[in-house]
Amino acid sequence: MNVNLPRFVLFEPTHPGNIGAAARAIKTMGFSELVLVNPACEIDGEARARSSGALDVLMAARLTGTLAEAVADCGFVVGASARRRRLNWLEMNPRENAAKVAEYAPSGPVAVVFGPERAGLANAELDLCHGIVYIPSNPEYNSLNLAMAVQVVAYELRLTMLEEPMAPAAEHPPAEVGAMEHFYAHLERALLASRFLDPRNPRHLMRRLRRLFNRAELDANELQILRGMLSALAPGTARPDQPAGDTDAGQSR
Amino acid sequence: MNVNLPRFVLFEPTHPGNIGAAARAIKTMGFSELVLVNPACEIDGEARARSSGALDVLMAARLTGTLAEAVADCGFVVGASARRRRLNWLEMNPRENAAKVAEYAPSGPVAVVFGPERAGLANAELDLCHGIVYIPSNPEYNSLNLAMAVQVVAYELRLTMLEEPMAPAAEHPPAEVGAMEHFYAHLERALLASRFLDPRNPRHLMRRLRRLFNRAELDANELQILRGMLSALAPGTARPDQPAGDTDAGQSR
Repeated sequence: MNVNLPRFVLFEPTHPGNIGAAARAIKTMGFSELVLVNPACEIDGEARARSSGALDVLMAARLTGTLAEAVADCGFVVGASARRRRLNWLEMNPRENAAKVAEYAPSGPVAVVFGPERAGLANAELDLCHGIVYIPSNPEYNSLNLAMAVQVVAYELRLTMLEEPMAPAAEHPPAEVGAMEHFYAHLERALLASRFLDPRNPRHLMRRLRRLFNRAELDANELQILRGMLSALAPGTARPDQPAGDTDAGQSR
Repeated sequence: MNVNLPRFVLFEPTHPGNIGAAARAIKTMGFSELVLVNPACEIDGEARARSSGALDVLMAARLTGTLAEAVADCGFVVGASARRRRLNWLEMNPRENAAKVAEYAPSGPVAVVFGPERAGLANAELDLCHGIVYIPSNPEYNSLNLAMAVQVVAYELRLTMLEEPMAPAAEHPPAEVGAMEHFYAHLERALLASRFLDPRNPRHLMRRLRRLFNRAELDANELQILRGMLSALAPGTARPDQPAGDTDAGQSR
């Protein structure tokens, strides 16, 4: 198959049983890529037991120290959230999420990120995401088990990606999350240099700008244009401590 | 509410943990009626632990000796099956099942029945059902955990029966098209001033940027931020022929 099947990322999971059950949920839906970011527990006998016939998926799970590392090569990343957010987010239910992931899958790796059992994903992790997937639930008791959330999201991904034909690839590949991080750092340096961003009173400026640009789902070419614009508007900010006037991001467009 | 919310029936379940997890799955999706037919295990500490905040649903579960007794009052009963059947069955995926259950719910009690972990429902039980619900799954590993199957079926029932269409009100009104045009004119002046945009060879730069920002569907506040950024990065470009240094677009954010 040519498309990238989604990567399932568990951020700082705390219960071995949930990790095993998530591996099983993923495999029953026809997926196999599991990444564990800084797990707070061992992959023990309980994890293996709950993985059942998906021991292969569990044992092949990749371990990373940070979420940024887990999704650096991804063109589209979505974070699971048990509650709605206030700032301007692309919010999707699992079905809408599946359609969006399927749209990006032909162009590069895609990932869905699930937070720790108790707290869920914090803003620092959501900053790396293009949108959130929200499982509609009982307002009086919305506490889905972690592996259950994985199962529901994976179920919708299966219906959309593996039971139906796929969308064609986009003209340009999506901008990778690692490259977006370089852009945000560049943007921040430019705004500091121009004094639009006051380091003593940053408010939520950078976060708001992340929401805006993540929502636009930039492709790699558009990202190059924005880097070039920044270099022209604020010379010397393309890299940390770069000599003034160096516009390495270029004007390719 | 006037309609009957679906009853969830576990036929001869064997693992206490699964019973507790099924109670939790049901409650997170806004349902509460659980019936256990001739369970092969006790409702023990593990069942209670896995039910988490759905202990009320678990403790209120009704016990019956036979499936016939559990569904005697129902107008529509569907059995979950991990595999397709040969005889002429009404076979539905969870989404189709939810539509069908919702159709019958206003007329009387409706139920979904799940079989024992290992064997699933036998023909004797399916004889009491109007159709089967089949969860699409990996042909090479279709062994969904019992509670996971309950979660997926309940999720689709919630979407169909309990969920309003998702339309969260925006924090700020959308940016008006006229205001966007002022922004694009401002952006063009800033890019000309910085020489990023070459008027003798504009290529499609402005069109590409329009696509990008239109796709982000800016709200009025975000547009103000972008105008402020431009004024800080390229002083004197906020208005045509404006005196240098005037940053009227302000920093409101």
